Amino acid sequence: MNHKVRRPTLQDVADKVGASKMTVSRYLREPQQVAEATAKKIAVAMEELGYIHNRVPDMLANAKSRAIGVLLPSMSNQVFSSVVRGIESVSGPAGLHALYGHYGYSMEREEQQIEQLLSFHVDGLILSETQHTDRTLRMLETAAIPVLEVMELPEHPIDLAVGLNHAVAAKEMVGLMIGKGRRRIAYLAARLDHRTRQREAGYLAALAGAGLTPVLIHTDQPSSFTLGGQLLRDALQAAPDLDGIFCTNDDIAAGALLACQALGLCVPEQISVAGFNALDIGHALAPQLASVITPREAIGRVAAERLIGRMEGKIYPDKVLDMSYEIFLGQSL
Amino acid sequence: MNHKVRRPTLQDVADKVGASKMTVSRYLREPQQVAEATAKKIAVAMEELGYIHNRVPDMLANAKSRAIGVLLPSMSNQVFSSVVRGIESVSGPAGLHALYGHYGYSMEREEQQIEQLLSFHVDGLILSETQHTDRTLRMLETAAIPVLEVMELPEHPIDLAVGLNHAVAAKEMVGLMIGKGRRRIAYLAARLDHRTRQREAGYLAALAGAGLTPVLIHTDQPSSFTLGGQLLRDALQAAPDLDGIFCTNDDIAAGALLACQALGLCVPEQISVAGFNALDIGHALAPQLASVITPREAIGRVAAERLIGRMEGKIYPDKVLDMSYEIFLGQSL
Repeated sequence: MNHKVRRPTLQDVADKVGASKMTVSRYLREPQQVAEATAKKIAVAMEELGYIHNRVPDMLANAKSRAIGVLLPSMSNQVFSSVVRGIESVSGPAGLHALYGHYGYSMEREEQQIEQLLSFHVDGLILSETQHTDRTLRMLETAAIPVLEVMELPEHPIDLAVGLNHAVAAKEMVGLMIGKGRRRIAYLAARLDHRTRQREAGYLAALAGAGLTPVLIHTDQPSSFTLGGQLLRDALQAAPDLDGIFCTNDDIAAGALLACQALGLCVPEQISVAGFNALDIGHALAPQLASVITPREAIGRVAAERLIGRMEGKIYPDKVLDMSYEIFLGQSL
Repeated sequence: MNHKVRRPTLQDVADKVGASKMTVSRYLREPQQVAEATAKKIAVAMEELGYIHNRVPDMLANAKSRAIGVLLPSMSNQVFSSVVRGIESVSGPAGLHALYGHYGYSMEREEQQIEQLLSFHVDGLILSETQHTDRTLRMLETAAIPVLEVMELPEHPIDLAVGLNHAVAAKEMVGLMIGKGRRRIAYLAARLDHRTRQREAGYLAALAGAGLTPVLIHTDQPSSFTLGGQLLRDALQAAPDLDGIFCTNDDIAAGALLACQALGLCVPEQISVAGFNALDIGHALAPQLASVITPREAIGRVAAERLIGRMEGKIYPDKVLDMSYEIFLGQSL
């Protein structure tokens, strides 16, 4: 593909229509300022020529791209597809293109991805994490574009943040389990990212309040259904009298619930199971899985609204917005 | 954020190090050509200044960005996270940045996303679909960059394609079900995208070969576990004597298997269940779910290798590469 086909230019479009280049340029910026018949002809010509808008001159002149960068921890986590839906419900109608990158829950990879997106002069960034390298923070400072951190409630946000309190939500869920008489509750943790740690803090607080002893089952492997089964078996080894499991997310919880059933443990009669995020799998299980409903689409929507607001110079006095959560009781407690 | 902080320039870095701008520029292009001590000082200075590389001059001069665009149908489909892993195992070491866009299985959205990525002068594109709008095809022609279509084996690829034959794989799986004595097998289809249709063709061919009558359960809703349960109940309404279900993917199959169990139907004694893609959920279920193992990571890897090969001017005589598939029998047949 080293033969270079010349991309059609504005001049090519103008020649085809019999209009001036300036008219075509105006059509691109403010179509309503061009006579309707001409606008229609320009649109047809662009389509026929396969015209591709070139962002580069604008990027060079104004360091603006009309694009926002969105960093996701993974490309397959159901949790983030709702966040994306929320973001795009706002960014699309605002004429902003969303460029995605993913960082596999690694701060170093996040740094590289942010560097790349900044080199494309994105006009704003949405980050799914609150923990960043020093270099990331310095780059964001020099880039001086709005940055929105989603999912958590950081004490010191880079700029603005929209999320929920994972520790409080976890504490409430585990408190419900204790309220139903469970005394030997394990926490199944995977990946050990920051949110997993926050949920663990909530679990520990609930247990401490009831004078109960924690059973912590940790792995740094990424979450999966089969891993949930493995962690449940590990927990039963560590505490054969287990009567409850609180899981860092619904993938782990669903796998653990299926493993309980395969082992002949009745849920919830003998052991209760709770997850986090209230994903679809929890509703497909019998019994339905108790979980924390996280307002992910709303978080994405509000994040995009505020990012655009910041791009327009708006000030938000509440830099960190708590979108709260709800509890889905299901039938597994 | 309308106050504009000036981004550090190459000159700023050079001044800090006490080197010439040309030395800093050389360091960026060919670090091994710069004396080690100087290189170290430049790296430190860049880090301290929060220097961000600017792609724009190169984009303007050479219409190259050292970035490739990757279009995914969805941001939460497990199937594509393996493809992405395969792509990045090659693109990262080659120094190419992957920019992702998603199109929600819509040709029109794909067109918009491709337009956006081309406006950033991506050097190549990986598409997850073989069906495109006319305007997409025209834009790709004028852009004249390498394009790789993954997952399917199109008769007329835009450029190159790497995938598998979904109809053949589906026909083999349904043939196995028939071989085990199943006579009333339904196909549970969702989304009705091109690959769902190809798998349906394989299912129909297997049934026709055995003189059996199809039971087609269709919906254009996106796949989910709960939808799988719903489609299973619909299938039982349509054919109360159902003794097998072949599902367009593992989300649907897992939901259908769980619904069978909730209805008291023994799998596989009374009804056998098969899916497609061999996702982790199928291994966590009891009985384990029969499925078609699709070589997704390998598809991503080979796609990226060939895309880069094309960018370097290589020719591939086999324009469409069949990566084949395997059958995971599980315990559900």
